[in-house]
Amino acid sequence: MMDTQLVLTGFLKRAARYFPNKQIISRTSPTTTHRITFKDYVKRTHRLADALAKLGMTRGTKVGTFAWNHHRHLEAYFAVPCSGAILHTINIRLAPEHIIYIINHAQDEILLIDGDLFPLVEPALSHLKTVKHIIIMSDDLAAPESSFTNVYSYEQLLEQADENFVFPDDLDENLQAGMCYTSATTGMPKGVVYTHRSIVLHSLALGLAESFALTERDVSLPIVPMFHVNAWGFPFAALNFGSNIVLPGPMVTPGIILDLIEQEKVTITAGVPTIWLGVLAEQEKHPRDLSSIRLVISGGSASPKGLIQAYNEKLGVPYVNAYGMTETSPLVSMSHPTSEMDNYSADELLDMRVTQGLTVSLIETEVVNENGPVPWDGETMGELRVRGPWIASSYYQDERSNEAFREGWLYTGDIAILTKEGYIKITDRTKDLIKSGGEWISSVDLENALMSHPAVFEAAVIAVPHPKWQERPLACVVLKEDASATKDELLSFIEQEVAKWWIPDDVVFLNEIPKTSVGKFLKAKLREDLKHYEIQTT
Amino acid sequence: MMDTQLVLTGFLKRAARYFPNKQIISRTSPTTTHRITFKDYVKRTHRLADALAKLGMTRGTKVGTFAWNHHRHLEAYFAVPCSGAILHTINIRLAPEHIIYIINHAQDEILLIDGDLFPLVEPALSHLKTVKHIIIMSDDLAAPESSFTNVYSYEQLLEQADENFVFPDDLDENLQAGMCYTSATTGMPKGVVYTHRSIVLHSLALGLAESFALTERDVSLPIVPMFHVNAWGFPFAALNFGSNIVLPGPMVTPGIILDLIEQEKVTITAGVPTIWLGVLAEQEKHPRDLSSIRLVISGGSASPKGLIQAYNEKLGVPYVNAYGMTETSPLVSMSHPTSEMDNYSADELLDMRVTQGLTVSLIETEVVNENGPVPWDGETMGELRVRGPWIASSYYQDERSNEAFREGWLYTGDIAILTKEGYIKITDRTKDLIKSGGEWISSVDLENALMSHPAVFEAAVIAVPHPKWQERPLACVVLKEDASATKDELLSFIEQEVAKWWIPDDVVFLNEIPKTSVGKFLKAKLREDLKHYEIQTT
Repeated sequence: MMDTQLVLTGFLKRAARYFPNKQIISRTSPTTTHRITFKDYVKRTHRLADALAKLGMTRGTKVGTFAWNHHRHLEAYFAVPCSGAILHTINIRLAPEHIIYIINHAQDEILLIDGDLFPLVEPALSHLKTVKHIIIMSDDLAAPESSFTNVYSYEQLLEQADENFVFPDDLDENLQAGMCYTSATTGMPKGVVYTHRSIVLHSLALGLAESFALTERDVSLPIVPMFHVNAWGFPFAALNFGSNIVLPGPMVTPGIILDLIEQEKVTITAGVPTIWLGVLAEQEKHPRDLSSIRLVISGGSASPKGLIQAYNEKLGVPYVNAYGMTETSPLVSMSHPTSEMDNYSADELLDMRVTQGLTVSLIETEVVNENGPVPWDGETMGELRVRGPWIASSYYQDERSNEAFREGWLYTGDIAILTKEGYIKITDRTKDLIKSGGEWISSVDLENALMSHPAVFEAAVIAVPHPKWQERPLACVVLKEDASATKDELLSFIEQEVAKWWIPDDVVFLNEIPKTSVGKFLKAKLREDLKHYEIQTT
Repeated sequence: MMDTQLVLTGFLKRAARYFPNKQIISRTSPTTTHRITFKDYVKRTHRLADALAKLGMTRGTKVGTFAWNHHRHLEAYFAVPCSGAILHTINIRLAPEHIIYIINHAQDEILLIDGDLFPLVEPALSHLKTVKHIIIMSDDLAAPESSFTNVYSYEQLLEQADENFVFPDDLDENLQAGMCYTSATTGMPKGVVYTHRSIVLHSLALGLAESFALTERDVSLPIVPMFHVNAWGFPFAALNFGSNIVLPGPMVTPGIILDLIEQEKVTITAGVPTIWLGVLAEQEKHPRDLSSIRLVISGGSASPKGLIQAYNEKLGVPYVNAYGMTETSPLVSMSHPTSEMDNYSADELLDMRVTQGLTVSLIETEVVNENGPVPWDGETMGELRVRGPWIASSYYQDERSNEAFREGWLYTGDIAILTKEGYIKITDRTKDLIKSGGEWISSVDLENALMSHPAVFEAAVIAVPHPKWQERPLACVVLKEDASATKDELLSFIEQEVAKWWIPDDVVFLNEIPKTSVGKFLKAKLREDLKHYEIQTT
C-alpha cells in the first residue's frame, strides 16, 4: 500500500478542488456578517502562509492565536500546520498570569490577535520571552499603535503576500500540528500537542454516520470556541467534508445563536449545556425556525435531564451528549440511542440520553477500580481511562504527565459507571468523590438529588474527614430567596433518591457556592473554606 | 499523541464489546440459514486462530481461502490477520492454471476450502508447492477422503481449539494483512497486498456519511464475493460498526437476493450491475417488500441509465455507483448527488448518477493526458490515476508493477472525463480507446449509441490501423434474431449521438461478441480475430 501521510494539506486541497462554492460565514461584529467561499478562503490561507513564512515561520515554529471564531482564525488553522509549523490556540478567558505562562512555555514566536482583544494582551507583552511578531486580525489595513515593535495588520500582510505559495508536500503525519492548554486543578495550565495524524483521524471520526455524520449537505455551527480543543474539530472536518461553517464571532448570546440557525439554515451545532439552557429559554420567548437542525451536540459537562427532554420532545430537535476533553481531541463517546433502544420506554430512553454514551470507533475506553474493569451494572464506579490514535500520551514538557498517563492509558480523572448497554455515565471527578469506608459516593448524584428540592437554589457536596469512615459527605446548600428548609427536611427529601449510607452527615447553608470562570463549582475552594469543619460524631 | 496502531484486532474487540447481540446471517445452502451472534462469532474466531496456530500459522504465514460468502469465511477474515498472518482470498472462478499459479506465487501454506468447492481444487493439489494443510469448511465433523495427506475438518479443529486464545497486541499497522489477485489482460493474475492500516482506514471510509454511512442500525448484504477485494470491505466494516451482515452463500440468484432483503430487512447492499439487472427483472415479476433498503451500491462496471432510473424512480430505492478496483481496496468514488444538484432537472441528475462520482475523503484522483490534468469540461479524456492510504503501491513480487505504478500514482488503465462538478466518468479502458489523428474516441460511447438501435443485440467497437489517422473505429455488431439493419442505417442512426469524426469507418456483422468469464466484452480476442481486417480507404 502507498505510504500516504495523513496530513492536513489533503483537507485543504479537497476543499478547494471539490467544494469551491461552499462558504465560511463569520459574524465579525454584532452587526456584520462576512462570507467567503472555500475557493477564496484557500487562496487567502496560502497568502497567510506566505506572509508568515516571510516573518520567519518555518517547520516547528509555534504560532499563537488569541481570537474569537471567525474566518481569519480559520485561515490560521490551516496556514500554520500545512507549513509544518504549530498552531497554538490560546484561551482568551485565562487569567493574565496563565496567558503569559502558556505563551512563554509554548515558546510562541508569532501571535495572531483579534483587534478587539489586543487591549487584553497588551499589558502582558513585556513579560513574553519568545514572541517576535504580532499580527492584528481586523478589517484595518493599518496596525494599531503599540509599545511592542513588530505589530502588523493581518489584511495588509495578506495583501502583500503570494496566493501561489506552495505548501511542503513532505510532511510526516506524526509532525506536531497544534496545541492547546487545559486548566489544571492546581498550578499552571498543561499543554496538549495534536499531530497531523491525530487531527486527520479525529476529523474522519466526525464524518462517521455513527457520530456527527458530517457531509457537504451540512451547515455546521460550532458555538464552542476555536481556542478550546479546536472547536471540537469542526473547522478541520468542515473543510474536508465540504460542510458550510458558521463562525459566531465575539460575545455570542442565545438570541444570536438562534438567529444564525434560522438565517443560515444550520443543520448541526455544538456547545456546552449552559449555552443550550440559554438557547432554550430564548426560543421559548421568541421562537425561531429550527427545522433545518438535525443534531445539537452537547458536551463539556453533564446535561440535566429536563434540558435533554425539552430539546428532543418539546422542540423536536435531536440533542445528543458527546464526551471528551482537551487531552482527547476531544471526541470519545456519544449518546446516540442504538437500534436496540428503539423499543425502550421514554424514561428508559432518557436514562440513556443523559449518559455520555457509546465509545466511538478507533477509541478504547475502560472504567477501572482497584478490582480492575467494573461490570456493566449501572452502579459500580471506577475511573474512566481512554486510549486511541487521537488521545494525548503526555502533557507538553510537563512533569505532571505521569499522573494522568500510565500503562498506555490516559486516566481522565472522571469517575464513571457503565450501563448494561456499555454506555459511559460520568458520576464525579476523582478529586470530588467521597470515599466512605472503602466505598465510593458520587457527589454529583447527591447534588442533583438536593437540587431537585423546591427550596434549593444550588448544592455542592464535598468530602470531609471522618474518624471511622475516613470520609463522609457534607452538603453545602444555597437556598432560593424567600425559601426555607431545614437540614432534616432536605436529608429526608433525598432519602428516596440515594442509598441510605450516602446521606450527608450534615448540611451547611451558604450564600453562594464558589465557582470557576466558566461557572463550574469550585470544590477545591469549598474544601479550603471548610477545612476546619468537623463532623459531629455521636 | 498515542502511537496507537491501526490494526484489525481493534475491530474484533469492538464487535465483541459493544455489539455482542448483532448477527451474522449466512445462507449456507439453498435451504439452510445459519445465524450466529457477534459474541459467539468472536469466540469461534479465537478458536480458529488457535487451531491455525497449532497447524503452524505464525506471523507472515499465507493462508488461502477458497469459499463463498458465509460465517466461516468471515471467521478467517479476522483470525488470520489478527494473528499477524496474511489472508489470501482466492477467486473460485479462475481457470485451474491461474488458481495453481496464484497459490504457488503467494506461497500459501494453509488452505481453507468450502466442502462443495473441494472437488474443484482437488485435481490441482499435486501442483501446489507450498501448501501443507487443507481445512474443509462445512458442517461435517470429519474430513473428506483425499489423496492429499493433511486434510482436516474445520468444525473438528474448532472443537479442539481454545476460545481463550490471545491475539498478539504488538502488531504494526503496516503489517501485511490480506491479499487478492486480479486478472491481467495478458499473463497470470497480479497480486495486491492489503495492510492492517489500509484495511482499517478503508473500513472507516465505509462508515462516513458521505459514502456508505454504515452504523449499527444497518443490515448489510454484500452480494459481491468475499474472494473479490474483500467483498468491497463490508466484512471488516460491519464488525467495527456493529452492522448485521447477511452472507448469501453459494449460487446466488435474483430471487434469493430479494428473499434475503425482505426476510432480513436489509438496509444496504452491493453488487455488480448484472446482478441488479437480474434483481430488477425478478422484482417486476414477483415483488418483495424492499422498504428496508436505504442504499443499493453498484460497481465493477458501468450501470446503464435505464437501470439507475428503474431503481431510483420505479422501485424508489436509492441506487448509487461506486468506483474502484482490486488495487484500490476498492472504494475510490461514489455518485451520491450533492446538495448543489438538488435543483437539477431529472435528466441532469441522471447524467450525474451514471458517472462514477466524487472522490471520497483521503483519496486523490486526477485525470491526465499528455497535456497534464484535463479540464472539468465533460469531454476531454485522460487516464484516471489514483493515490491514497488504501491504494496499492505495487503488485506482489511482479515485474509488471512498473506499468501501473508510476510517480507515486496508480494508473488505473481507465479513460475518464470530469464533469463540471468534478464527477469522474469512465469512458473507456486505455487499451480499448481509439486514437484517431491524435484525438481520442471512446469505444464505450460508440457501443452505447449502437446498442440503442432497436435491431442491435450487442455491439463492440475496436480500433483498427489506418494509414492516415493511425487508428479508426470499427463497429462489430450482433443483430437481434429476426432483426435486420444495414451498415449505413446503423451509422446514420448514431450520427445524432456522437461527433461526426467518431463515426466508425465500417461495420462488421458477427454472430457473437467474445466475452470473459464474467460476461465482459473480450476486446483483445476481437482485435486478434480481426487482425487481418483492412479499412477500405477511398
